[in-house]
Amino acid sequence: MSLKTTISSSRVEGTDVYNLAGEKLGAIDDLVIDKRTGHVRYAALEFGGFLGMGSDRFPLPWSMLTYDTEKDGYVVNLDMEQLRSGPHYAKEDRPDYSDEYGRGVYDHYGAHWGV
Amino acid sequence: MSLKTTISSSRVEGTDVYNLAGEKLGAIDDLVIDKRTGHVRYAALEFGGFLGMGSDRFPLPWSMLTYDTEKDGYVVNLDMEQLRSGPHYAKEDRPDYSDEYGRGVYDHYGAHWGV
Repeated sequence: MSLKTTISSSRVEGTDVYNLAGEKLGAIDDLVIDKRTGHVRYAALEFGGFLGMGSDRFPLPWSMLTYDTEKDGYVVNLDMEQLRSGPHYAKEDRPDYSDEYGRGVYDHYGAHWGV
Repeated sequence: MSLKTTISSSRVEGTDVYNLAGEKLGAIDDLVIDKRTGHVRYAALEFGGFLGMGSDRFPLPWSMLTYDTEKDGYVVNLDMEQLRSGPHYAKEDRPDYSDEYGRGVYDHYGAHWGV
């Protein structure tokens, strides 16, 4: 068994996401990558389809995701309410991921916006 | 029309790759991401299925890929022979993308291995 330092995008897509309380929040639908630097800017979390909400996409900074081998999924330190009030969009209405939009997402979660 | 600075992983997967002579080399099969930094380390190019070769995966540093809107594909500055002699592996036999392996790939193509 080796501690792999890399993961493939196709392996990330579809992986479940939980919060610290063990509640399943949804699954990663897609990764959004900075073309120039090759940095993953966000993981788009598919969240919802319950409580009357549709299944929207919630962009999360990559650094917020921690992989949990027991759960075979990612864990984020967010309760449902925090996530629900976070930036999101309809799948078919993806925003232009400008730096401005990105900074808004990072600011919302208190994540560090690197270059 | 806006110059998007980001692209989604699902959009990259399946995108064709050409060389400067306009020859189609194959298509991107997958992206390999550094878990800690969120950096795309390689795009895995599916190349072959002709000249008696099976369809292997050829890891290419992200920085080598330039998107060409006319071709709706990526262009790399490699002729077939250069690619053929480059690092590759069978799809079902993906190596552990260690730093050592990664540096070997970057060295082969003269790409800069950043942190």
